[in-house]
Amino acid sequence: MDWATLEPSLNLTEIGEQAYRLIAELYPLCRSITGEGVRQTLAIVQQHIPLTVHEVPTGTRVFDWTVPKEWEIRDAYIKNAKGERIVDFRNSNLHVVSYSAPVRGKISLTELKEHLFSLPDRPDWIPYRTSYYKENWGFCLTHNQLLSLDGESYEVLIDSSLRAGQLTYGEFYLPGTTRDEVLLTSHICHPSLCNDNLSGIALLTLLAKLLASQPRCYSYRFLFIPGTIGSITWLARNEARVRRIKHGLVLACVGDPGHSSYKKSRRGDAEIDQAVRHVLEHLGQEYEILDFSPYGYDERQFCSPGFNLPVGCLMRTPHGRFPEYHTSADNLDLVRPECLADSFSKCLAILNVLENNRTYLNQNPKCEPQLGKRGLYSTMGGQAEARVNELAMLWVLNLSDGMHTLLDIANRSGVAFDTLQRAAQALLQHGLLKECVKAASRPPRTSENEGKMNPTAIGDTRRKGSKR
Amino acid sequence: MDWATLEPSLNLTEIGEQAYRLIAELYPLCRSITGEGVRQTLAIVQQHIPLTVHEVPTGTRVFDWTVPKEWEIRDAYIKNAKGERIVDFRNSNLHVVSYSAPVRGKISLTELKEHLFSLPDRPDWIPYRTSYYKENWGFCLTHNQLLSLDGESYEVLIDSSLRAGQLTYGEFYLPGTTRDEVLLTSHICHPSLCNDNLSGIALLTLLAKLLASQPRCYSYRFLFIPGTIGSITWLARNEARVRRIKHGLVLACVGDPGHSSYKKSRRGDAEIDQAVRHVLEHLGQEYEILDFSPYGYDERQFCSPGFNLPVGCLMRTPHGRFPEYHTSADNLDLVRPECLADSFSKCLAILNVLENNRTYLNQNPKCEPQLGKRGLYSTMGGQAEARVNELAMLWVLNLSDGMHTLLDIANRSGVAFDTLQRAAQALLQHGLLKECVKAASRPPRTSENEGKMNPTAIGDTRRKGSKR
Amino acid sequence: MDWATLEPSLNLTEIGEQAYRLIAELYPLCRSITGEGVRQTLAIVQQHIPLTVHEVPTGTRVFDWTVPKEWEIRDAYIKNAKGERIVDFRNSNLHVVSYSAPVRGKISLTELKEHLFSLPDRPDWIPYRTSYYKENWGFCLTHNQLLSLDGESYEVLIDSSLRAGQLTYGEFYLPGTTRDEVLLTSHICHPSLCNDNLSGIALLTLLAKLLASQPRCYSYRFLFIPGTIGSITWLARNEARVRRIKHGLVLACVGDPGHSSYKKSRRGDAEIDQAVRHVLEHLGQEYEILDFSPYGYDERQFCSPGFNLPVGCLMRTPHGRFPEYHTSADNLDLVRPECLADSFSKCLAILNVLENNRTYLNQNPKCEPQLGKRGLYSTMGGQAEARVNELAMLWVLNLSDGMHTLLDIANRSGVAFDTLQRAAQALLQHGLLKECVKAASRPPRTSENEGKMNPTAIGDTRRKGSKR
Repeated sequence: MDWATLEPSLNLTEIGEQAYRLIAELYPLCRSITGEGVRQTLAIVQQHIPLTVHEVPTGTRVFDWTVPKEWEIRDAYIKNAKGERIVDFRNSNLHVVSYSAPVRGKISLTELKEHLFSLPDRPDWIPYRTSYYKENWGFCLTHNQLLSLDGESYEVLIDSSLRAGQLTYGEFYLPGTTRDEVLLTSHICHPSLCNDNLSGIALLTLLAKLLASQPRCYSYRFLFIPGTIGSITWLARNEARVRRIKHGLVLACVGDPGHSSYKKSRRGDAEIDQAVRHVLEHLGQEYEILDFSPYGYDERQFCSPGFNLPVGCLMRTPHGRFPEYHTSADNLDLVRPECLADSFSKCLAILNVLENNRTYLNQNPKCEPQLGKRGLYSTMGGQAEARVNELAMLWVLNLSDGMHTLLDIANRSGVAFDTLQRAAQALLQHGLLKECVKAASRPPRTSENEGKMNPTAIGDTRRKGSKR
Repeated sequence: MDWATLEPSLNLTEIGEQAYRLIAELYPLCRSITGEGVRQTLAIVQQHIPLTVHEVPTGTRVFDWTVPKEWEIRDAYIKNAKGERIVDFRNSNLHVVSYSAPVRGKISLTELKEHLFSLPDRPDWIPYRTSYYKENWGFCLTHNQLLSLDGESYEVLIDSSLRAGQLTYGEFYLPGTTRDEVLLTSHICHPSLCNDNLSGIALLTLLAKLLASQPRCYSYRFLFIPGTIGSITWLARNEARVRRIKHGLVLACVGDPGHSSYKKSRRGDAEIDQAVRHVLEHLGQEYEILDFSPYGYDERQFCSPGFNLPVGCLMRTPHGRFPEYHTSADNLDLVRPECLADSFSKCLAILNVLENNRTYLNQNPKCEPQLGKRGLYSTMGGQAEARVNELAMLWVLNLSDGMHTLLDIANRSGVAFDTLQRAAQALLQHGLLKECVKAASRPPRTSENEGKMNPTAIGDTRRKGSKR
Repeated sequence: MDWATLEPSLNLTEIGEQAYRLIAELYPLCRSITGEGVRQTLAIVQQHIPLTVHEVPTGTRVFDWTVPKEWEIRDAYIKNAKGERIVDFRNSNLHVVSYSAPVRGKISLTELKEHLFSLPDRPDWIPYRTSYYKENWGFCLTHNQLLSLDGESYEVLIDSSLRAGQLTYGEFYLPGTTRDEVLLTSHICHPSLCNDNLSGIALLTLLAKLLASQPRCYSYRFLFIPGTIGSITWLARNEARVRRIKHGLVLACVGDPGHSSYKKSRRGDAEIDQAVRHVLEHLGQEYEILDFSPYGYDERQFCSPGFNLPVGCLMRTPHGRFPEYHTSADNLDLVRPECLADSFSKCLAILNVLENNRTYLNQNPKCEPQLGKRGLYSTMGGQAEARVNELAMLWVLNLSDGMHTLLDIANRSGVAFDTLQRAAQALLQHGLLKECVKAASRPPRTSENEGKMNPTAIGDTRRKGSKR
């Protein structure tokens, strides 16, 4: 992958529109950590990329956790004395607390209120609530709806079931020149919430689609997983291959108009952390780098001390910092095509850094080589104007002592990575640099069979002919 | 010691009053680096804690120094022609330069003036001066007194003696679960000066009294010593046990209304330095951290390069920064019960960090353990509100890889130490953590006999039955 | 060398005037990277110091470069139709692009303009341009001159030659107690430009003159070299002795009224970097520390990765930051005697740090030694005033554990180096310190023969009897 050649060919406007349409298509589905909503979501993603869908049975032990029962929801409402559905699941799937146990009957308002959730300070919004690991039931409604309840008793129905079933997740693997992997993930368990995290699902899908068409140094693994239990399940089932993950990004809340933010991996100075910082810094837009904390998305699991993977989280406005977070206002108005496109473009710029972050050895380390005689240097001396490209070459030469990557050089020099990348290519062509071989990089083994480890895969839709 | 259980039982108002009363009681005594004033001071402290009083003979070599002659002072005055005591030791023991040699006779004003010290810019205050190591004599007086001298000659008397005697200091040892020690010291050589350092003596006494009643992980050693020569003498006599000192605090100027300040140990990043910074930072009051310098109190000796002990100095306004410093204005008006109480409370909070700063090992390091099934986690997900205690548990779990102490976790997370301490206790109870055993910690040996090393101890007033 | 004894004997006003006179004497010469202008310049320097002049033949390979042809220029002009010299080399040697190939004939204005260089935003200044490594010719002129050209054709003459000859540079070696070297260099290739870099040449000359009369711990090597090709040539011919260079400074732009600035070596924390920072910081004037970059003066070559020497660059206003840079306005009005004197004095202060930056071992490391009994300490205690010298002694004692140089102590304490130096001398005299012997320091070998390596030296003008 080479950003310099890729960037001009991208139609970011179209990509933003495409991502937005995908969000709109996924929006009505009632997702949770298990169930049909997840399967339907993955099926839509499969229309874009040949995703492998995995199913893991209820009761499977995954580290300290157990795959929960599968949740099915068909209908739900609160009816008033006149039999009117005053809270109706058909209007918004947020109305039902996710994983609500079935309930049916007439109950007093007092008792009902113990099962109702609203937002007093946002009286028109429906909150989003879950109760995955403790059997319970409940309705979420606007505070205005709550205030209007004045009957003595109400008829409630939650036509759901909690039965042994499957936990479903999607996985897409793109082999590269080496088996070293970049992990890219999004959580897929939220119902009709756009920024958190249909935006992540849409971007991940389009990134995978694009990368499939590009030359790749790294192998790429895309995970579409329910939050927490999904990453735990994947890690439990793939413990042996975790060491191949050299860099990772969790994508979440990437569609709102706020500026970009990045939460660092637990390591804090991993290559991914440096790469993201470099890209955001050089774009000249406002951005924020957040320290790692063990609260957030699936980076919590990837960065648990037993794994400590170099996985950060790329967002725009972080979870909990925008008022619409986890409410019905996180809808199709909150996310914007141009913001999705901007996040997409930043992802590619980050991956470009990872793909091209090589270490070189200056072949003329004693004094500068004479760039002029190779046509690499302006021949008319004495002018004071900055010469960005010449300076980039001088930086690459000066720090290519085998101990600095291009990204190190970018950080020290303040020169943009892609400018240094072009400089390094010119110097390589003239024999002034040689690449240092990374010990960790090996060619992919052809005998590797991804399928083996997925006994419950319901469909291996990988593209034919892709080299595994 | 556990701050969480201790704090609610403390009556800080009463402690502040108690410290103030002790200061008032000690105020009139004429202390110096040796002599009766020191003995009387230690006798008063012994009414509160079973202090061992040590006497070291004049002439004893202590490293590069020699224990000086003992100074006795009975009376001193300057009389005018009418025989009136115009400067009178009975009014203030600051009037005599400490360690003044005896003098008696009539001398001219010109000659007298070479032995007078005043503060022109504070004409009503008497300065405090000493001449320990060069025989000399002198009077300190207010500048107004000095200006009023207009006689031709004056009668002077300093009825003192400098004779072979003893250097006296007090020591109190409280054994803990381990022989690793926390050293707490105050200098006791200043005469009628309240903030510097009756405040330190009073606080040290009350801290010792309280800690004697608490369970202790560390052993505690309290030293009431004359400045410089006292710490040098103690170090010379206890060189072999110095390695047990794991943390130390010099208490000085802890009663004035200024904000708290802490001078770091020579190491600069010792656990005590981090602990004090953490406590001061989390109290939300103004505070100041000062870098180590080789000028100040007895930390100069403890932090000399041959010892380099992790000993810092806790103060309110540092010496030399308040105008009353080393003058008669450092009196009972300068120190306040509520400031003494505040310093006391900070000391306890610091010791609580030291006592409970353990390193743990997460027993479920791969992914998060499921806190919910253990009742440790709110079961209703999706709420945006910060959950301080859950976050504390997640931080402890995430960083308990055997390489981070609780204090490290506090520093990285920004969560208060005692919140993390409670989180760790909950996780320990559920088997989710195990404590890493410190190599340095050993149980106390019963054969240890503190008395052995103190052949000149004049009274071993240790509590019976205390395990040594 | 000892700044404390040296400083009072210096007449800085006279030194500034001397440097200015030297600049004025060198100003009219037409220097380039080779040729008579360089030889004349070095001959003038030889009137002050016994410089060795080296000549290296055209075609000599020096790493990736080749010593170029020697350039000779006799006359040059542009004549109008009336035969008037409207651009005349005799008025300013900047009028000819340095290394212009010979040209003679009548050419159209259109064609001529391709060979003309002016500064539209500084219409009265002549720019400075070179074309060393690509054969070309050109004239530099004021923009007003350019605008006034309205003839159809012009007669141009550049009476120059480019023939096999020599590259000329000057070298002066001052042996010290050890063979460890301090390298001091200036580029000598610029024609009539005062700040860049007659200022450097003048200062280097006067520094060499002064240091020759001082006791020296280090050996000093002064290089007067054409930029880039000169340092490359010197490094290529002296590769084996490069490891002796322990510190180095490139002097450039040291005469303008801007504040001092220092560009760090590639290492960034070399002793020279710390020494310069310390000196500039303690002078209480504005100053600037610049990070290393591979663009600038000969530090580019000394700091190439194959050498990575601890060589920084001392300037006032850095190249390219003053508008007169590389124009005819960098003339005798831009540089000032008092600024040259100030730069000179800073150089000496920096060299004083290097010369005296020893590591000591406290001979009484356990507790403070008793300074009072040695007359090193004020005997009257209790005064609040800061005692700078006593504090300096305490700092030296406290940090002289064999792991801190005096400069380390200066950096940590904030005390000026020369104050610490005096304190260390006092402590040494009283046996309280011993110097730690540096492993790298060895006495100079008498068998060393500098001449050997200079087969083409045209004149060894070293002072007789100087120990080599």
